This record gives sequence, C-alpha cells and structure tokens, in this order.
Amino acid sequence: MLGARRLLGALRLCSSVSCPRPRATAKLRVRDALGVQDASGECVTVQGWIRSVRSQKEVLFLHVNDGSSLESLQVVADSSFDSRELAFGSSVQVQGQLVKSQSKRQNVELKAEKIEVVGTCEAKAFPIKYKERHPLEYLRQYPHLRCRTNALGSILRVRSEATAAIHSYFKPSSKIKVPEENFFDVPAFLTVSGQLHLEVMSGAFTQVFTFGPTFRAENSQSRRHLAEFYMVEAEVSFVESLQDLMQVMEGLFKATTEMVLSHCPEDVELCHQFIASGQKDRLEHMLKNNFLIISYAEAIEILKQASQNFTFTPKWGVDLQTEHEKYLVRHCGNIPVFVINYPSELKPFYMRENEDDPQNTVAAVDLLVPGVGELFGGSLREERYHVLEQRLARSGLTKAYQWYLDLRKFGSVPHGGFGMGFERYLQCILGVDNIKDVIPFPRFTHSCLL
Amino acid sequence: MLGARRLLGALRLCSSVSCPRPRATAKLRVRDALGVQDASGECVTVQGWIRSVRSQKEVLFLHVNDGSSLESLQVVADSSFDSRELAFGSSVQVQGQLVKSQSKRQNVELKAEKIEVVGTCEAKAFPIKYKERHPLEYLRQYPHLRCRTNALGSILRVRSEATAAIHSYFKPSSKIKVPEENFFDVPAFLTVSGQLHLEVMSGAFTQVFTFGPTFRAENSQSRRHLAEFYMVEAEVSFVESLQDLMQVMEGLFKATTEMVLSHCPEDVELCHQFIASGQKDRLEHMLKNNFLIISYAEAIEILKQASQNFTFTPKWGVDLQTEHEKYLVRHCGNIPVFVINYPSELKPFYMRENEDDPQNTVAAVDLLVPGVGELFGGSLREERYHVLEQRLARSGLTKAYQWYLDLRKFGSVPHGGFGMGFERYLQCILGVDNIKDVIPFPRFTHSCLL
Repeated sequence: MLGARRLLGALRLCSSVSCPRPRATAKLRVRDALGVQDASGECVTVQGWIRSVRSQKEVLFLHVNDGSSLESLQVVADSSFDSRELAFGSSVQVQGQLVKSQSKRQNVELKAEKIEVVGTCEAKAFPIKYKERHPLEYLRQYPHLRCRTNALGSILRVRSEATAAIHSYFKPSSKIKVPEENFFDVPAFLTVSGQLHLEVMSGAFTQVFTFGPTFRAENSQSRRHLAEFYMVEAEVSFVESLQDLMQVMEGLFKATTEMVLSHCPEDVELCHQFIASGQKDRLEHMLKNNFLIISYAEAIEILKQASQNFTFTPKWGVDLQTEHEKYLVRHCGNIPVFVINYPSELKPFYMRENEDDPQNTVAAVDLLVPGVGELFGGSLREERYHVLEQRLARSGLTKAYQWYLDLRKFGSVPHGGFGMGFERYLQCILGVDNIKDVIPFPRFTHSCLL
Repeated sequence: MLGARRLLGALRLCSSVSCPRPRATAKLRVRDALGVQDASGECVTVQGWIRSVRSQKEVLFLHVNDGSSLESLQVVADSSFDSRELAFGSSVQVQGQLVKSQSKRQNVELKAEKIEVVGTCEAKAFPIKYKERHPLEYLRQYPHLRCRTNALGSILRVRSEATAAIHSYFKPSSKIKVPEENFFDVPAFLTVSGQLHLEVMSGAFTQVFTFGPTFRAENSQSRRHLAEFYMVEAEVSFVESLQDLMQVMEGLFKATTEMVLSHCPEDVELCHQFIASGQKDRLEHMLKNNFLIISYAEAIEILKQASQNFTFTPKWGVDLQTEHEKYLVRHCGNIPVFVINYPSELKPFYMRENEDDPQNTVAAVDLLVPGVGELFGGSLREERYHVLEQRLARSGLTKAYQWYLDLRKFGSVPHGGFGMGFERYLQCILGVDNIKDVIPFPRFTHSCLL
C-alpha cells in the first residue's frame, strides 16, 4: 500500500446500473436536492432519516431528512419497496431520479430506484414519537436524540448560521482599497482568556475578537444561566468614547441577525410560529429602530417613578435586578436600550473613571433587550497608568496585576470592549424561553446529563 | 438622553482643518493605507505604535505599525515635530496626506500634518529593544508584550487566517445548485464536548465540525504539548471507509494552507526566512504531493528493518513513539503519511473493528507530518449495536455509555471522524519549533504566566 495515493475526486460518485442514463449518481444533501430547479430525471443518491411514511395501494411516500434543512425530501416508491423496516426514525440510502413533483407542496421529489435501510429504529423505545410535537422540556431529557426533531434542528441550524455571521462580521474578506468603514480585518484570537487577555492583544492589533466557551460556577437554575456558555468578546484600541463601542455592539446584533434571517428563514420561521408566537414582530421592531441610550442615573429615576412595585427597591449605588431590566426595556417601547455610566463601586477595577465627582461613575455599558435582559456588557478600560495604579493599590491587587499595569507603561492607548452572551442572543432573536434549548449540550448546576 | 439615537455612520471621520482640501480625514488601518494605489494627497489619520525613528536635519521619518500587517507605514514629518516622546514603542495618532513615496521601498507614505503622542513608552523598562531581534525563548517571558514584535505579530496573523480558513473549509457560503462536491454546508457546533458528542450531532446533521479549546492535564514539558490547546474536530455520517475520512483530512490541510499562503504571504515568509530556514521548500513538497498511506503493520515492518537504533524497540501491539513517527515520515520522503488499522487493544472502545482476526485491528487513522509527528487522529466509529455493546460490557462501561449505545438503536449509520491539533498545524506549516510560540497565552505544566 506504500506509494502515492491518488485522491479520489469522484469518491462521492457511485456507479449506477438501474438509472436509465449511463452515468454516475451524485450524492446529494436534501437541501441541495430541494433547491434543484427544473429537475429532469437526474440520478442521485440521498441519505438521511425517515421522518414520515405513507403507504398507498400502489405507491409509497417517504420523507427523508438529513439535517441540512427543515424541509424533508419526498421519496416516491413503488409499493413493492414497502417493508416493516422502512419506518419513522430509520436511516436510509435512496437512489433514484430527481423529478419535478406533481404536488404543489414541493418542487422536486425523488423517484426511488433502490432503497436501502442503513439502520433500523425501535419505535417503542424511541423517545421521539411519530407525528407528535414534543414540548422542549420533554426533549431536554434526551440531549443525545433531541436534535432529530424539527424544533431542535431549526434552533441548532440558526446557532450555526449565527456563529458564521459573527465571524464574518468581525472578519470580512480583506479588500485592498480605501474602505468606507474599516473594521476588524484583523486577527481572530479564539481563547478562553477573556477580556484582560484581549486587552494584551488589542495593544498590538488594535481590533480583536474572541468567540468560544466560557465557564462560570453560577449556582443558578434560572432560564438564562448556564455553567458553560459561549461568549463573543471584542476589544478596540483608540476608541474615543462609549459611542464607538455601542456602535459596534448594535452593528454586531443587527448584522448577525440580518444574516441569520436571510440564510435560514424557514428555521427562524418555525421558532417564531411554534415556540414564540409574536416574536417575529418583536424582532422586526428591534431591528428597524435605533437602539436607545440612558444613563444609570436616568434608569434609577425611571424605576423610582414607576407605578410597579418591585421586590428590590431601586436605589442609586445598587445593581439593577432582572425585574428592573425588564421594566426599563418595556418603558423604552421594547427597543434594546444601552444603560451607561454606572457607579464605580458596582464595577471592576479596570473600568475607566468618568471624572464626574461626586457621582463617581465609570464608563460602563450594558445592553438590555426584550425577553432576556442583559445581553451585552462592556466598558472603556482605564488606560491611565497612575489612575489604574491607585485603583489596584486600593484593592490590594498591584502585585497580581503588574503585567496588566505594564500595558499602560509602554505605548498605552484609550481602548474598550464588550462581551455578548451567545445563547442569550439566540434566545432573544428566536424567542426561546429557556437557555438550555439553544445549546447542544447544556451544563448547569447539578446537571451534566451528557 | 432618552430618545432615538442616530448611528454615527461618520464616527470614524473627524474633521480636519490643517488639510488643504476642506474634507474629512478617514481613519485608515496601516494595511489599507499601504494598499492604496496612486495615492494623491488623501487626508487620512493613522494610529499605531512607533517601530522606528530616524531623524535627519530637516526631516523626521517614523515607521508606524498597528498590527494589521507586517509592514509599517512610513511617516515623513518636518523635523520640528521631533520630540523625546516620539520614540520606539510609543503609541501615536498621525494625521496627514497619503502620497506616493519617492523611495522604492514602499508605495506610499504619510506626509504628517499633525502627530499626537497617545502613550509614551519607557525605553529602559521595555523588554523589547529597538532594532534587536529577540529569540523566541526570550519573548516567551513576556506574553503580555511579545505580540508587539514582528515574529509574534506574523505568527498570530497566520493563526487568525488559519482559523478563518478552517471555518470556510467546513462551511462555504451556501449555493443552491447541484454541487460538484457537497461538503459541510452544515451546522458548526462550537463546543468543548469532543468526539462522542459530535457523534450525537452527526446522527442528525450528517456532517458537523467543532473548533475550540481543549484541555488535557498532560504532564509534559515537550515542545509539542500544552495543557490548553485548540482542536478542530469533524464527524461525517454515511462514510464508507477510512478513505472518505482521509480525503477530508488531506483537503482540510491543503485548503487551509493554500488560503493562509494567499492571504498573508509576508507573514509566512517572515517565519520561513527568520525562524525556520528551508521550511518554504519543505511545505511546498508537502502541498504538491499526495499524502501517503501505510498500515500500522507495514509501519512496524519498516521500523524493524530500519538501520537506526531506537530507544523503544518497534513491536506489534505497542504504540508508535515520537522517534518512530519521525523515522516513518523521513522514510516516506517527508511527505505526510496516514498510518491506518491499529491493533484494537491500543485504541479506545468506540473505534470500529476491522474483522480481520487474528490481527484484530480497528479502523483508526493517524496522520504523521514532518517536524511535528502526529497531527491528526481519527477513526471509523463502531456503529453496530451488538459489537459496541460487547465492547462496552468488556470494559464495564455499559451503564455510563447507555446514551452512546442508544445512538446505535435508532437509525444508526456508518460514521467516522477526526481531530487536528491546531497549534501543531501552525508549527507544521510555519516551522516553529516550540508550540508555546504559536498560541497567544500558552498554558502548560507548572506554568500559567498570565
């Protein structure tokens, strides 16, 4: 076997005898098969799982899905193909001709010449039942099988599109010209390092981002917390104000969402129709309006004047609670709202002081969105050596953060950044109530099913 | 401040008084400025760090770098701008006119109208010295500052390009047509879950990949091990043989490398020139040849017949050691070589048995590459319920892996996958000897500097 190996370019083609034309049959994904215009008997092979079986006197109809799209491909076969093994959940390989469908429900269908059951499915033991719409809570018990349903299939395809959209927002294909907007055509550093480490990189590359898993030992069973979640973080050097950052945040939210809507409209539609009715309009409302900005001080005033009784009394110097966030978003007409300039004592040492004694706020920003509350958090970072040195000394952190202080000694620049919780983002656009349903394998307190 | 906010599209434009033409000056990244063809006095602002200063009687030359490219932008200023603060390592903002350079060394230069020192740099304390080429070992002591050097800048830009290239290999922009090759236009599930979890997803989506950090408590100080490293993993359903997987591995390696070479040739060139001389030819040799395939049995025979004395005697049933891997690659003319069909007892329970008694091998595959050794590892997975059940029972794992066994009960399909160590990949193409130099913040045994 030692010797040069020729790459089998035709590996995905297998010879066909039964097809009328003497040519190879192409393996096609369901999504691609469905997209074929003017099908005229092309010999193809499709592989996937049976989603439905309908047996008539002389004809057998199967729907085959391979996860590439919400819609399944209709397979039409002679009833002689019928067998007990051709059942809901079984995996099959179907070879045949792609033809125009006579039904108006689909463009094309596959006229089967050969059907092979690859793996059978024990219907009794299979927790997903034929033609039933299972609640998300029920499916959560079966993290290893739930992706075989329409709902989780759609959610996870959206997750995938959103991942790609985020990457392309930060790293468009590079063009050499004087750009209208020049943004983030720069290193993507996927790390678990988080913000302080991103600041290191922004001190050489000016615009950096990272996107990956983040771990928090949050002892919370809430519908918006996980022990392992995904976070997009960005850091920008030479920023002039929080406005610069808010522009990037709003741009990220809107560009990502537009790309998801254009790339997998059916999947989004399914969520909006069956999981969160009314969400379509709520999302459009968010996208077509400019996000709002209020200061923390204004937020506290709004809350104080609210007719609603809060469990936690709103007060200057105390963090906003979920109930407060919800009220503020409603008060702002369900448009996402940036809350800026928080009291210094509520925020970590690295946020930039606003020099507004006696208020003593820092240039922090949170974005609150309908249904979810806090989606982004960010700030300008303290780039002034002596200010940072004093704050570290006050916290007794000078020794541990000498390296961080160093960054302000050798060509320091004004900079800032933010993080966005990726699962919360998906909850926000899809209207999915529980965060555990927008991640393939949720890990949270006292639960690690897989 | 409550109220609609208009997005400042012109945020990155700032008004200019000193420029002759009454128009705004665009903020430009160095890479974009360098790419301007036929510069003719455009008013621009550039921000970055000073890489060199040369003061002549009437003219001051600065080189400004912002991490967007290896090359810096030459700034030409009247000597009246000269000041002690305009020194190596300082951060600056320069406003001026982009003009054709009279020197042949660059296309354009920036005729400064205004130079602002944003942050000074203490030359004495700065561990990076002007005009010195520091060894990578020295720079490793300063993970928070080393990205300000040419070498680390280039390596990390390549890392970023390779990241993007991997994403685009697995997830090309979707086209609706009968594709020549249809590959991986499917969900990208970034998780830390690893292979068993990817198998769950491949049981609904047929082709999936993940790319993210992986953690191993490897007690190794070797030049190719880290406690935290990045891994690309892919899983493909309906595969027919190891050939299918090897085709994807070879395709991933070659497509990613070609994209890196075309997107940041200067950065790769710098590594090949100053870090690993001769690497350029070695890489070309890898790219232009088809990768080879040998079986584990053949590998053992080759090693037994070798004239070289090994520390570990090569023997059937024993794992290949680094010295063996190196020998095999050399033996194969420094072309990457797939080693397939390992003894079952060397490999984990999930790999597919080859039914070749008495040899008793599994359908495993490792790719060995010059300089690095093992780069990929993969296998077909055992998709047959009863075979897997027996193997789990033998290992006493039946209970813990009931969910994994379940996947073989409900529409099981032949499938397989692989993982590629991302840092080792970067070492392999760039010729960087130590893995700690191709990751922003290396974490390994007894070391977590940042």
